[in-house]
Amino acid sequence: MRADTRRMRAAVWYGARDVRIAEVDIPTPGRGEVLIKVAYCGICGSDLHEYVDGPHAIPVAKPHPASGVTAPLVLGHEFCGTVVALGSSVTDLTIGDRVAVEPNYRCGACPRCRAGEYNICRHFGFAGLMGNGGMAEYAAIPAYMAHRLPETVSLEQAALFEPASVALHALRRAGALPETVAVVGLGPVGLLTVRLAAERNVPRIVAVDVSPARLRRAAGLGATDLVDAGVGEGAGERICELTGGEGVDVAFEVVGSESALRTCLAATRRGGRVVLVGLAPQVSLDTFALVNNEQSIVASVGYRDTYPELIRLVAERGLDLTPVVTSTIALDALVPHGFEALLDGPGNQVKILVDPAAHRDRLDHLVRCAASAETATHTTSDRGRRC
Amino acid sequence: MRADTRRMRAAVWYGARDVRIAEVDIPTPGRGEVLIKVAYCGICGSDLHEYVDGPHAIPVAKPHPASGVTAPLVLGHEFCGTVVALGSSVTDLTIGDRVAVEPNYRCGACPRCRAGEYNICRHFGFAGLMGNGGMAEYAAIPAYMAHRLPETVSLEQAALFEPASVALHALRRAGALPETVAVVGLGPVGLLTVRLAAERNVPRIVAVDVSPARLRRAAGLGATDLVDAGVGEGAGERICELTGGEGVDVAFEVVGSESALRTCLAATRRGGRVVLVGLAPQVSLDTFALVNNEQSIVASVGYRDTYPELIRLVAERGLDLTPVVTSTIALDALVPHGFEALLDGPGNQVKILVDPAAHRDRLDHLVRCAASAETATHTTSDRGRRC
Ligand SMILES: [Zn+2]
Ligand SMILES: [Zn+2]
Repeated sequence: MRADTRRMRAAVWYGARDVRIAEVDIPTPGRGEVLIKVAYCGICGSDLHEYVDGPHAIPVAKPHPASGVTAPLVLGHEFCGTVVALGSSVTDLTIGDRVAVEPNYRCGACPRCRAGEYNICRHFGFAGLMGNGGMAEYAAIPAYMAHRLPETVSLEQAALFEPASVALHALRRAGALPETVAVVGLGPVGLLTVRLAAERNVPRIVAVDVSPARLRRAAGLGATDLVDAGVGEGAGERICELTGGEGVDVAFEVVGSESALRTCLAATRRGGRVVLVGLAPQVSLDTFALVNNEQSIVASVGYRDTYPELIRLVAERGLDLTPVVTSTIALDALVPHGFEALLDGPGNQVKILVDPAAHRDRLDHLVRCAASAETATHTTSDRGRRC
Repeated sequence: MRADTRRMRAAVWYGARDVRIAEVDIPTPGRGEVLIKVAYCGICGSDLHEYVDGPHAIPVAKPHPASGVTAPLVLGHEFCGTVVALGSSVTDLTIGDRVAVEPNYRCGACPRCRAGEYNICRHFGFAGLMGNGGMAEYAAIPAYMAHRLPETVSLEQAALFEPASVALHALRRAGALPETVAVVGLGPVGLLTVRLAAERNVPRIVAVDVSPARLRRAAGLGATDLVDAGVGEGAGERICELTGGEGVDVAFEVVGSESALRTCLAATRRGGRVVLVGLAPQVSLDTFALVNNEQSIVASVGYRDTYPELIRLVAERGLDLTPVVTSTIALDALVPHGFEALLDGPGNQVKILVDPAAHRDRLDHLVRCAASAETATHTTSDRGRRC
């Protein structure tokens, strides 16, 4: 099907608004690395940021120390696939292994790494942002990033382990299992937080967003109460009312804005906790109220030790993460039906997966579309109209 | 000595800059209350705030629901003494019991009270701010506020249990016992935080203040490192350097200012925690950095279940809290040698105790002065010159 078997197609970031589907060399796995044939690679909000007005995390001036790579580089850090080649010194993986990729570089030597908190490693980095990633037919990654999947875990599920890890880590940062939570912001991570809170049998899960479509999705994923933050005043106060005026034990800020943080603080009970996942810029904080209410603001960044738990949850408890997928597209469709679709209708799309093996000629850009939380398979004739 | 045995002298708050040493009725202990003869009552920063530009917490428009009291009221919430009369239905205290007073009203019925977190009771209040307090010869208090002291615990130690409770609660809010802490702000609570961290054998205790006198006191109480925040740039960065560039596990903000919070965040390692004790107004917070460093801001207000531990520490482990006392004064001296002394030289005075039984004629205003961390006994001839 391809003339040169050493070449592959990849989504390469050259600059803001300049992501090209290019033909590049298939990477050779180095010492301690494996080559995987990518099955899926999800589009993350940070990819979108790099597309819109990057570089943010992408190294342009000098190579990133963890990867040795400078832009142009291959985007994509939410990926999974099958091991097709082993570099030297790789002993715990075999060709044919299906793996989920935990795409974080870490040094293993800094104080945080030694404490097991590798998500806050001093030399932390992401494959797909600070190094070449998974929006390509193939990717070479350090073997330590690969988690072997049991037969009962599909690659569709594994494609969501990265954003689900962010949600799982945030839930862990909530501390003791709460009775009542609010999830403010229902993008992929917010929705997965709802899903995983439901998986943990949190009795009361209040989902909060300005988009009725996202609120409906949250209901389908296990939210017990929906608060439309775009309607009327005081979303925080309305959440309080849902809990008899007390407020929730834990609120998750998954928006990254001052107003979302305010909503979270107003929604949280005395002694409660706001888990900060969203990346807001500078915010103004009423510390007087924070102290008098003895609240905590607990940041959550990335994840650690989440993949084994997610594998267990899917394999043994039947956890299904795929309802957050609203469409699966071919590599060629990345810009028009990936990035631009996410920018155009923020409420319509949630998680878009790229399937690099989808043949561009036959399926055009669109492989599957599951907009509005429906699962539907479209042929070329649909051409993404419903996405 | 006194003509009318039903009258007593008390420090009564009438308004800002209007605290009078007045002759008032000795209160009658009601149902569930006890009357105590006050041994000592410490002056707290919040008393000072009420003196300078109150009312802040003092009820003036309508009676506080917990106490039924409106100003003018008797100040003072850091007190201890001896039970001299019992109201009805008091069964677990006896006349002659020496008690430390935990001066918090709580409802016992709200969700937080039922969870044991009575420091964040919905109807929380302080005797001595929202009701009559202990800057008087006698005080009537609910029996639940009184903690009986074993013989081995002196009333001088018990006089410090209230500010020490604030410090102990803050230490508990730090979570797992840290290896390294910074205490930013060395007023009474900051110094007691240093003392209690040392009691818990925290290996590295960095004390931070702008006052060299307070820094010296911190060294005497167990601080291992001193950082003068008033000298040079970047106190936070200097604290980091003391820990090999990593930052401390926990920083205590005991100032209540944006710059102190900034220092704490800069001083704290990735994944570390800032315990917020100080009451700052609105602050500007870099949540982007907070999230990327996965730090937490954990508020600490008041205390709960601290008195039994403090009694144990003093009785069984020889904990000595009294080095923070810089002078002990008679009631008459409250304004000139209490409030004004604290306002004039913030570095000179730390904790001033009022001894309501000290005879105004014989000792004038001054009972004992231990300025500059020296313990010294002065006679009337000293007249507070060294305070
Ligand atoms: Zn590291
Ligand atoms: Zn209560």
